[in-house]
Amino acid sequence: MSLSAINRNVELICIGNELLIGKVLNTNAHWLARRVTSLGLSVRRITVVGDDLDEISSAIREAIQRKPSFIITTGGLGPTFDDKTLEGVARAIGCELEENKEALEMIKRRYEQYVAEGRLERFELTKYRVKMAMLPRGAKPLPNPVGTAPGVLVRYGDVNLIMLPGVPQEMMAIFDESVAPLLREVAGNMVFYEASLEVKGVPESDLAPLIEQVMRENPYVYIKSHPKISEKTSHIELHFSTTCEDLNVARQRIERSIMQISELISDRGGKIRPVQS
Amino acid sequence: MSLSAINRNVELICIGNELLIGKVLNTNAHWLARRVTSLGLSVRRITVVGDDLDEISSAIREAIQRKPSFIITTGGLGPTFDDKTLEGVARAIGCELEENKEALEMIKRRYEQYVAEGRLERFELTKYRVKMAMLPRGAKPLPNPVGTAPGVLVRYGDVNLIMLPGVPQEMMAIFDESVAPLLREVAGNMVFYEASLEVKGVPESDLAPLIEQVMRENPYVYIKSHPKISEKTSHIELHFSTTCEDLNVARQRIERSIMQISELISDRGGKIRPVQS
Repeated sequence: MSLSAINRNVELICIGNELLIGKVLNTNAHWLARRVTSLGLSVRRITVVGDDLDEISSAIREAIQRKPSFIITTGGLGPTFDDKTLEGVARAIGCELEENKEALEMIKRRYEQYVAEGRLERFELTKYRVKMAMLPRGAKPLPNPVGTAPGVLVRYGDVNLIMLPGVPQEMMAIFDESVAPLLREVAGNMVFYEASLEVKGVPESDLAPLIEQVMRENPYVYIKSHPKISEKTSHIELHFSTTCEDLNVARQRIERSIMQISELISDRGGKIRPVQS
Repeated sequence: MSLSAINRNVELICIGNELLIGKVLNTNAHWLARRVTSLGLSVRRITVVGDDLDEISSAIREAIQRKPSFIITTGGLGPTFDDKTLEGVARAIGCELEENKEALEMIKRRYEQYVAEGRLERFELTKYRVKMAMLPRGAKPLPNPVGTAPGVLVRYGDVNLIMLPGVPQEMMAIFDESVAPLLREVAGNMVFYEASLEVKGVPESDLAPLIEQVMRENPYVYIKSHPKISEKTSHIELHFSTTCEDLNVARQRIERSIMQISELISDRGGKIRPVQS
């Protein structure tokens, strides 16, 4: 299949008041964006909303309208009143929540294990625990190897909706075990390749035309400049990236554009050094 | 004015491919969310899009439709081809970009200073430098005490659009100098007050009904549970927050709800300890 025929678009939706009040740094979005990109897919948008049913369902509805291949949400799957993600999904796609037997089994097993380990005195199937097994009709629970609330997969038309917990360790474990293989199926052999250069002695406004020139001559390479300021010194980081099916081709593309821009920068009296990633 | 009569809603839009590929952790959104919240306003949504004109203008248009008091963007104000934020704003609000004299003066002065300091050999007003002074008609440039590209303020109906650079030091400096005072005008004397407790020995699903009970009895206090997992141990962090016009009232509200939930948790055999922020 050709690159253009595959829908490689992914959207992330992170749910939680703690993100909107700046209590928690959104490392989940960062980790997911990195993983999705390195799997050869492309994150098009990240949306953060609070624990509000209207906000969650609008964000999901809007993302569906942009027709990504995957929508991955984080947060709001737990047992408390403000864990509303699945209700938001159900509302966005117009379906009901129902008790999912497979999910309920996963949750029961997890609490029984806690009792066996002495971490919990006894296990009772309260409504707060059943809540975590109330999934949109037709959904598939994704095992949570680290915590209690399972992840959830719902297919809606051509869009795969994947709901992950907000606790980073749980989110990462479910992603690696159950989500990465789904993404790989869509991405095929695509690889993302990148490298960075540190430039000193040329201001960004004078690098601008050089970047344009090298990008014109290397149409598959994206070059972005990042000014870095510190107390003692400042420099520009140039970041080179490309996505293609062959790692060697990707590397050659990047190396060629780095060579070209390095010459142009040296000609202007700038100093260059590679950045170790 | 009563709390409900003021529109305290703020949206953040962060622009940059580096955020979507997971190269850069979005500390700008975290910092802004924290500052906006502590100034007594409320971040309702954070959107991250790439350096793409369509994406930027849609994100801005959608945010305007939700009628926040402020939209604050970060990134995309620099001299390179992919700095497209102001073009995106102009397209979203249906106006032209034009050379802004005040902005051009700021930019000139900055480069002349670089020459005086010996950081730049000579100053030439290239099109890449003029680009940073091409603002939406009627916009006001906000001085950048740290870098070259000014921030930008555009009023569109009841919405204040504020565009800040993506370089954290520049973003923070412009925010503190020119944006915080505008937010304070709207927020009045509102204060945000918060505290956290660490809970051990009670699983989140058993805390859920206790949280509901205490929130019912303390309608102005929001309580959110955050499971924390580490290699050796795990606990739940309970976060309490409230926003009101009187710091003492805020503190009393939080203390009362902490006392109530602490009793309930102790009754269930749980252990509690305050978290130093």
